[in-house]
Order: sequence, then C-alpha cells, then structure tokens
Amino acid sequence: MSSLEARIQRLEDIHEIQNLLGRYEYLHTADKQEETVELYAKKTPGVTAEVANWGVYEGIEGIKRLFLGLHRMGGEKALIGSMHMHTLTTQVIEVAGDGKTAKGVWISPGHETGNNPQGKPEAMWAWLKYGVDFVKEDGKWKIWHFHVYPIFMTPYEKSWVEAPPPDSTLPGASTLPEELKPDRPTTYFWQYTTNVKCDLVPAPPEPYETWDDRSVA
Amino acid sequence: MSSLEARIQRLEDIHEIQNLLGRYEYLHTADKQEETVELYAKKTPGVTAEVANWGVYEGIEGIKRLFLGLHRMGGEKALIGSMHMHTLTTQVIEVAGDGKTAKGVWISPGHETGNNPQGKPEAMWAWLKYGVDFVKEDGKWKIWHFHVYPIFMTPYEKSWVEAPPPDSTLPGASTLPEELKPDRPTTYFWQYTTNVKCDLVPAPPEPYETWDDRSVA
Amino acid sequence: MSSLEARIQRLEDIHEIQNLLGRYEYLHTADKQEETVELYAKKTPGVTAEVANWGVYEGIEGIKRLFLGLHRMGGEKALIGSMHMHTLTTQVIEVAGDGKTAKGVWISPGHETGNNPQGKPEAMWAWLKYGVDFVKEDGKWKIWHFHVYPIFMTPYEKSWVEAPPPDSTLPGASTLPEELKPDRPTTYFWQYTTNVKCDLVPAPPEPYETWDDRSVA
Repeated sequence: MSSLEARIQRLEDIHEIQNLLGRYEYLHTADKQEETVELYAKKTPGVTAEVANWGVYEGIEGIKRLFLGLHRMGGEKALIGSMHMHTLTTQVIEVAGDGKTAKGVWISPGHETGNNPQGKPEAMWAWLKYGVDFVKEDGKWKIWHFHVYPIFMTPYEKSWVEAPPPDSTLPGASTLPEELKPDRPTTYFWQYTTNVKCDLVPAPPEPYETWDDRSVA
Repeated sequence: MSSLEARIQRLEDIHEIQNLLGRYEYLHTADKQEETVELYAKKTPGVTAEVANWGVYEGIEGIKRLFLGLHRMGGEKALIGSMHMHTLTTQVIEVAGDGKTAKGVWISPGHETGNNPQGKPEAMWAWLKYGVDFVKEDGKWKIWHFHVYPIFMTPYEKSWVEAPPPDSTLPGASTLPEELKPDRPTTYFWQYTTNVKCDLVPAPPEPYETWDDRSVA
Repeated sequence: MSSLEARIQRLEDIHEIQNLLGRYEYLHTADKQEETVELYAKKTPGVTAEVANWGVYEGIEGIKRLFLGLHRMGGEKALIGSMHMHTLTTQVIEVAGDGKTAKGVWISPGHETGNNPQGKPEAMWAWLKYGVDFVKEDGKWKIWHFHVYPIFMTPYEKSWVEAPPPDSTLPGASTLPEELKPDRPTTYFWQYTTNVKCDLVPAPPEPYETWDDRSVA
C-alpha cells in the first residue's frame, strides 16, 4: 500500500488530467490554438498528435503545424459561422503507479459546422473517441500522445448509415502545402460504415506501474 | 504544500460539487422545483441565476421566482408530453485554495420537448454550456452564481444552421406578469448563427487561491 | 470525521467505480461479452441486470444468459454494420459510509445501429439512464444491480415525438428460446411518449452509511 501522500497525489493527478483535456475542448471550439499548443509536453521526447485520417504530427513543431497551421488554413474568414465542438464523456483514466505518466480514453459526442464547397455553412453530427497518453513535466500534466478516433461524421440531414464512406486519408492531402503535411501516415483508421464491425480501439487502459509502451493513442 | 487533510478535503469538494450539479439535472427534468431551490446558497449574498436570454434573477427570492414561478407558468397540464433534459460533460472544476468557493464549467448536450403554439409536442435538440460559481455554507456546497449559456436550440427536423435566429430577450418578456420578471437584463448573449464566431465564454476556470470576482457565471 | 485513510479510500472508490462503468461501455460496443460478465459480482447474492422492457436477469447465470446469450442471438453476421454505443454523463455517485457498497446514476446519450427486419442497417438515437448499485468483493468494485432505463429510441429520420410508442415488454419475448428468457418481468417501465410526464426514476442517490435497500437499479 503506497503512502497516504502518494495516494492523494494520484487522485489530484486524475482531477488535473480531466481538467487538462476539458480545457482543450473549450479552447478548441474558440480557436485558441496558441493556448492549445501550451497543453502539450515540451520537454519529453515523442510527442504526437493524430487526428482521424490526417496522419501523425510529431514533436512540438508538429503540434504547431497541426494547430497553428492546418487548423487555420481557412483564415479568419472561415471562423464566421463555423463551430467545432466536442465533448468528454465515459472517462476511463489510469495514472501509472510511479505517477509519471497516465492514459485516458473518452467517447465524444459532438458536432462540426463549416462552409461546404459552395461556401454555405453545413451542420454535421461528429462523434469521436479520444485515446490520450499524458506525462508530468515539472509537476504539471501535459498531453504526450493524442489520438482522435472518428466514429461517424454525418450531415445533419442524413444518418451515419447514409453518410458517404470516409476516406482513409485526408481529402486534398496530396495538395497540402509541404509545411503543413504530417510527419507520418495515419496509423489506424476506422469509421462506421455499413460493412464493418465495431472494435475495441482505443481499449480502456488497465492499471499499470510504469510506462509500458501500451499507448492508448 | 497544504496539509494532507486539506488536500483530501479539496478532492471531496470536487466530488460533492459534481454530485450537486448532477442532482440539479435529474431534479430539473422531473419538475422537482422546490428541491432545486434547495440547491442554492441561502446565507451568502449575491446569489444569481441567468438562463439564456431570460435576464438575471437575484437572491433566493429571485431563484424562487425563476424555478417555482417562471418554470411552472404552464401549470400541471404543460408537463404532459414535455421533457427538458440536459447533461453534464467536459467538466472543468477549480476549488479555491481557501476551500470556500469553487468554479465549474460544463458542455451540455440535451433536448427539449414541449407544446408548440398549436398545442402539439415538438422535439428540439438543445445544447448549452454551464458556468457556475459555488460557495460552501455550513460545510455543504451550494450554487452561488448560475449561468446557462445557449449553444443552439433547433427543431429536430432542422439543423442549427437552418434554425430561426434567436431573440436576445425572452420572447413575451414584456407581457410577463410583474412578479415573474427578472431583476436585471441578460448580461451576455451568444447563440450559434451563421454569421457569428465561437467565443471562450465561459472560459474554463484557472486555479485560484481566494474568491477573485472572476466569475464563470 | 473518519480517518484520513478512510477518506482517501472513498475517493479512490469513486474513481474505480467511474472507470468500471466506463469500461463496460467500451466493452459493450465492441461485443466483448465475456469481459462484460467479469464486471459483475461473483460472490455476493442478489446480482441482477434489467434492461428496458427485457425483464430481470438474476444471478451470475442470468448475467451470462443476458450477455453471452441474448446479446449474441444474431450471431457473428449481425455484428457487420451494427453499432451499439452509450455514453456516461451527469454522474452522481455515493459510496456507503462503510465502504462496502455504492450507488450511481448516469444520463446516457447514445445511438444504436442494427439491421431492420428487411436486413438493412438502420440508425437510431437512443438515450437512456443508468441506475447501478455496486459492491466491493476482495477489494475490487463490481456491478451488483444494473438497470438501464430508456428515455427514447427513435429512428434517425424521426424525433422521439414521432417515434412509434414503445412496448412494455420485449418484442418477441414470448418466442424467445426458454434458455434466454428473463427470470422475472420488467419491474419498472417508462419511455417518452407524448402523453406521459417525466419522473425521478432513478433518483440520484443520497449519502448513506450502510446498505439500506434503497437501490437505484
């Protein structure tokens, strides 16, 4: 049985991690991309962010390309009438016995609104899952490995059963400016279609003692 | 570093606050308005509740006007076929270092069903955010400042992009019986329309030591 | 005031219970039925699971009939294109003062996709509530009494106002193979229709000292 102090610390860690990813969601919707970058680890090697079929962005430079670059390709104008909102539910968090890392998964009901190719706002239901590894730097929890797993993204007028089949790579990826491209291709792709089965990815984390390379991201 | 006992207390506070606002949601759906009033602070000056574009209700007398009065204008009959359900997700809670107050924000997927002007039940998706300040009275957490921030409210058959533009004041406010009117006008109004940007209101709270007038409500 | 150690234990209990029901949701979507059975109490009398209008399954043998039997009636083939996803929000958990049992309620936005009678996948929004009693066995929390309370289940193209009225018993119950039948009829049935009122079932639990037969399930 670990000391009382260590047990309290672990409970505080869980709360801080929940707040950390919660802050991400509010910042994300409000296009606070600089503040979002600050949520990521700065001193720990191996930082990654992988969103759906967009590929893997590596290191803090990759995180900046993803949030300050790719997320802002549309410029100020694209923010008018757009809304990207994702929630955190069904939380399973495990903090390592050594208190240095943690893993968490969430199911995220949400919605996306943006201009369609005709320049008209289009509303979509967008459900996803998060699998995130965290690391503690100088006493503060940071995002270490971040992975957004799509469930479905469907125009409001159609269900996910009727939605067009997803691409396994980001549409237009080949014409992305070189400086916004991911470092590596997508590592895992699943999205609901009528001919697939549901899987256990990310699997909810099990208790663990020290970092074991069993990332949920 | 505060004492172990103070740190445990703070973790218990977080849990009690989560339960408190959770109870509000179940009571709200079941029209348990008397029990809802009991969740509010009774001994602390400055209690407020502000819902969307309805204006600000002040003091425990204002809370009673809002919940026992305004929420029950339709009478018993209006409860048949109606359903007002709001969830709590994406929780960010900060308890003051001194343990006397706390702040929390939530994103709330939900839905509303009520009779339309033709007396026919109408289903709507209603997403909102909560920004709530809490205060501890005699060892129990209470709601101090309560603010419901709308995101969208849209008839089931139409997306938020197609929904009619919201009013910035409660429809029919001018004909409300005097005794149900708010004490002050709405302090902040935002709701999704195709010509606005998303903002960071309420902003997720930052850690703080003692009440600092930076309300999330 | 209980000892610091007991208070820490209680906070750990809350976290473990949240993780436990969270794991259930991920396992459920991925058809990991054997792992789901493992979440239930094995050494405590009175285990039950009741889902909507399906009746009550009793004891660990009943739990196996429900998850390994009834949930798999469609066989492997039925998993293609199907998706059963339920989230956990609006959590209210109370752990008994004696630390041996606990109660929790949740509101669960979700969705169901499965083949309709014509063999075509059909998407439905499915909101429910959970009321669950938990018991600690050999230092680990387990599900003791599990009750899924439907709110609405409606084809994507229609709102809950337009949805066909629900049956109060499982459709086809009378032709279920004997070995898959529930042990007892449904104990409580409510689902939104345009002629009912919302109720407070399950009610969020109140703090309690020792198991008091006031189940939330």
